[in-house]
Amino acid sequence: MAIESAGGTCAPLDSKAEARVVDFRSPPRGFARALRRQPGIRRVQLPSAGIEAFADSISEFPALTWTSAKGAYARPVAEHALALTLALLRDRPLRARSTSWGTSSGTSLHGLRVLVIGAGGIGVEILRLLKCFDTTVTVMRRREETIPGADRTITGASLHDELLAPEVVIVAAALTGATRRLLGVAELALLPGHAIIVNIARGGMIDTEALTKSLREGMLAGAALDVTDPDPLPDGHPLWAQPRALITPHSADTMEMIIPLLAARVPENVLRMRAGDPLTGFTDIEAGY
Amino acid sequence: MAIESAGGTCAPLDSKAEARVVDFRSPPRGFARALRRQPGIRRVQLPSAGIEAFADSISEFPALTWTSAKGAYARPVAEHALALTLALLRDRPLRARSTSWGTSSGTSLHGLRVLVIGAGGIGVEILRLLKCFDTTVTVMRRREETIPGADRTITGASLHDELLAPEVVIVAAALTGATRRLLGVAELALLPGHAIIVNIARGGMIDTEALTKSLREGMLAGAALDVTDPDPLPDGHPLWAQPRALITPHSADTMEMIIPLLAARVPENVLRMRAGDPLTGFTDIEAGY
Repeated sequence: MAIESAGGTCAPLDSKAEARVVDFRSPPRGFARALRRQPGIRRVQLPSAGIEAFADSISEFPALTWTSAKGAYARPVAEHALALTLALLRDRPLRARSTSWGTSSGTSLHGLRVLVIGAGGIGVEILRLLKCFDTTVTVMRRREETIPGADRTITGASLHDELLAPEVVIVAAALTGATRRLLGVAELALLPGHAIIVNIARGGMIDTEALTKSLREGMLAGAALDVTDPDPLPDGHPLWAQPRALITPHSADTMEMIIPLLAARVPENVLRMRAGDPLTGFTDIEAGY
Repeated sequence: MAIESAGGTCAPLDSKAEARVVDFRSPPRGFARALRRQPGIRRVQLPSAGIEAFADSISEFPALTWTSAKGAYARPVAEHALALTLALLRDRPLRARSTSWGTSSGTSLHGLRVLVIGAGGIGVEILRLLKCFDTTVTVMRRREETIPGADRTITGASLHDELLAPEVVIVAAALTGATRRLLGVAELALLPGHAIIVNIARGGMIDTEALTKSLREGMLAGAALDVTDPDPLPDGHPLWAQPRALITPHSADTMEMIIPLLAARVPENVLRMRAGDPLTGFTDIEAGY
């Protein structure tokens, strides 16, 4: 209905449809096979912001126009990143487990230095929320260009220097060859002992074993993870036992939050396709997002 | 030193000092006795935003100029109110207690209707933070005047009508005769079953027994309380056993957050006193704040 409201036509899957919308029920594995059976498809709308699960299909059909949901879920995901940040700073894991009053504790976000890794739709929205507080924000991105509103913009080349300063690190980048295990043993060791890490991107960007060790040894003040590696985090994994780890199961954007946002993205791109305008969420296959 | 930097002089307590700064170590009980021994005092700076603990001294010395710390702690307290709101909406109490992945759940703050009770420094700062999200905010205050930035401003006369709508209620008013047990059995029963309550003001504004019952019976989706009645909440109190209650022990503004903010308020008022300007935090004894 959303497609038709934008002037498109919903075609059955075995016909000469030109575009295909992938919903969350379609398993990424096997998608290439489906495409082989539909030679008319020129354009694919993927349902998630990250595309790494569809890497095989994309590399088999690089000539198609691939659009992801990047940016569409920025508001709820950035909100979750802020919620996790405040939860760790305000000692929420401890409080939620408590059955006694205890001593007042916690840190205010005001006045802190924050490093945001990634400057896509989610990273930019996180920056906006952080700037509702009196924070100093450094954004790390792939390209050299400055992000408006950030106090500083850096590239990965200065990451090691930057890790010496922040009280808060928020991981919001796409998972690519360049960002896999971006925060490993060496990087985690550089962070101040009072720093916290929040990951709402992909679990693979942090070395889980190194993170667990840092938390266990008190080298970090906390970690809040909406994504883990492995993902889902299996029962009995040592991270579950870390009192300063707060884990949410991909709750940044629940199905209830996503469906209306994806439903808005689809007709927007049908309109753009009909008008010959650039599509929203256009995927740079080389860059990996 | 802060006093002297503003041109004041720190006098010993037994001398003819004109103003007295009360710090957090001074017990409110017995303060009237101290004032009787210091007839030169014309002005008292209290250390907290709420003044009800000093009610006896204030009623014995109504001719003194009483200033509270109202407004001084607005930033950390409003931040805590937002943190508690997001924590409840995002099912944080459940997650912090979990040792298994579970199902993605939670609600985004974007798009919700919020009722903020109280329009002092803290209420106005909570409004500012809520407006960083796409929320519709009604502010309830004692006077009829509209609060800039609020979608609607109401007085207590329309409270019962207003309680039918919001997903989030944040209590941020001063505790006075008029606000004690403002949210009792009747008021809690009016709220939608998916509503949450956050209290960062004073425990006495909510009927604890009625709140516990509402949570137990699933009439409310959650309550996050930085203040309780009784306060501190004793071990074994039934609220501790409510899975949808999140309790923090006066952590909205910790001593570490307060001290620099109070230390800035004191010389500000010394400067104002010397210049003959109205003092910041001037207390309306009739109103009770």
